Amino acid sequence: MSDFEKVLDKSASKVEEQLKRMLPRVEGPEGRLNEAMRYAALAGGKRFRPFLALETANMFGVSEDRALRVAVAIECIHTYSLIHDDLPCMDDDDLRRGQPSTHIAFDEATAVLAGDGLQAFAFEVLAKDDTHEDPNIRVELVRQLARASGPRGMVGGQMIDLDSEGKTLDVGSLTRLHQLKTGALIAFACDAGAILGRASPALCRALHAYAHDLGLAYQVADDVLDVEGDRETLGKTAGKDAQAGKATFVSVLGLERAQAQAQLLANQAVQHLDIFDERADRLRQAAQFVVSRRA
Amino acid sequence: MSDFEKVLDKSASKVEEQLKRMLPRVEGPEGRLNEAMRYAALAGGKRFRPFLALETANMFGVSEDRALRVAVAIECIHTYSLIHDDLPCMDDDDLRRGQPSTHIAFDEATAVLAGDGLQAFAFEVLAKDDTHEDPNIRVELVRQLARASGPRGMVGGQMIDLDSEGKTLDVGSLTRLHQLKTGALIAFACDAGAILGRASPALCRALHAYAHDLGLAYQVADDVLDVEGDRETLGKTAGKDAQAGKATFVSVLGLERAQAQAQLLANQAVQHLDIFDERADRLRQAAQFVVSRRA
Repeated sequence: MSDFEKVLDKSASKVEEQLKRMLPRVEGPEGRLNEAMRYAALAGGKRFRPFLALETANMFGVSEDRALRVAVAIECIHTYSLIHDDLPCMDDDDLRRGQPSTHIAFDEATAVLAGDGLQAFAFEVLAKDDTHEDPNIRVELVRQLARASGPRGMVGGQMIDLDSEGKTLDVGSLTRLHQLKTGALIAFACDAGAILGRASPALCRALHAYAHDLGLAYQVADDVLDVEGDRETLGKTAGKDAQAGKATFVSVLGLERAQAQAQLLANQAVQHLDIFDERADRLRQAAQFVVSRRA
Repeated sequence: MSDFEKVLDKSASKVEEQLKRMLPRVEGPEGRLNEAMRYAALAGGKRFRPFLALETANMFGVSEDRALRVAVAIECIHTYSLIHDDLPCMDDDDLRRGQPSTHIAFDEATAVLAGDGLQAFAFEVLAKDDTHEDPNIRVELVRQLARASGPRGMVGGQMIDLDSEGKTLDVGSLTRLHQLKTGALIAFACDAGAILGRASPALCRALHAYAHDLGLAYQVADDVLDVEGDRETLGKTAGKDAQAGKATFVSVLGLERAQAQAQLLANQAVQHLDIFDERADRLRQAAQFVVSRRA
């Protein structure tokens, strides 16, 4: 395990603990819903988006308590999207993060509701006083997360993804698809730290540009892994996208050029950080991690 | 059409127009998503929740522009819940508001995403500057809507509802189910007007108590209509809940006692308004409308 992976691991543990503390307890007649929400959200995972929020918040001296609440909100949105993506009517995936998907462990109706509940919960967390004493900052976090995860962001990207099954996409269309589907939430994770830390517009722009390239590098590398990875190390069904007739960066560019493209994007991401001193070193490492990870 | 129904009708038209203006346009590769969101949200309906928000806001002198944005947010949440409730894995209903349900008119995956997108869109609308110049008020609207629609509100109620199929419920459990499933959002609609209008705590409490009883009266009357109504006037499959083996106020209390209970709750709702002068007359009429409507 590299030094960076240890850092990521430690951050993931903190996020896991915070999720455990904050998610609704399993009690009352609606207990099954809370159980499903906890099942999906506490299944481990790299917690890469929360890491980005914690790390950028830390760069601006934001207290970890506050940053962790925002990290939890982001992870709840990410988890809800995974639950819904795995549904039989969507990607129909039985396995997620190495365990049965929520609709398998529970049932489809509970999975739909658990996703719905996690989305509402994320916005409730951001809106509460504990997230920041300044309501301007809380409401800005809500506005940007809603945009990043909604029809002009993640959900819009998922629609394009479903619509493009069996179609030939060019690199431009594929790039737009992933900017919305995964890029928007990754970008929000970095923006969130800057919002919490009242960063200057110039620093906000630099972080946003970093996150933009990082998100794409992440997705291109994911497509490479999807081909190379095996079922065990990835914790999800490998090669699934290709089987489903979905265009991927590998199917469009070929394996070798996709790998090169991922590295190019990671390098570009790091260049946007030149405005920062060594405070941004972990973000620089994150960019390299994204393209060199094995799972 | 009674005078009150004319008022309700006019209010519904305004909300419909505002939804048309505000919902994302059908354009870009994600256009199918926006089309489905608009299809579901612009299908008519009484717009009773938006009416309550507009009416309570008006009682406190809030400008209609602001109140309409909040009304749109509430209706988007309500619409998303209807789309997801109608899914085959949930209530499996092919008809909604007299037209094919979203998953029939489009497909299941698009229906799931349209619901998800409408939820995010609702929070984005509330968080934007145009909703109110005071960020405290915007963030309070977000917090309360998230709570009312999330695991401790609407989604929790829907979970209890699904879980109770084929079970015998007593009046207490059935009441709690509906307080969460439909009552929480109806209560938020009234609370929202008071929040926008910076109403005093005493007036907020009175409105909340009114909304609580009104919401229950609405549901009891709905169960009565579900038995009495026919498919045509209701625009959804009548008697469906009873067929699905779900406990209803009619199955638990009997038709006659359920009718009496609805009227009792409506009267109780009106009593909570004694603190208001004739400003609240439309809310008083609304309580009577809820139990005397034929559809």
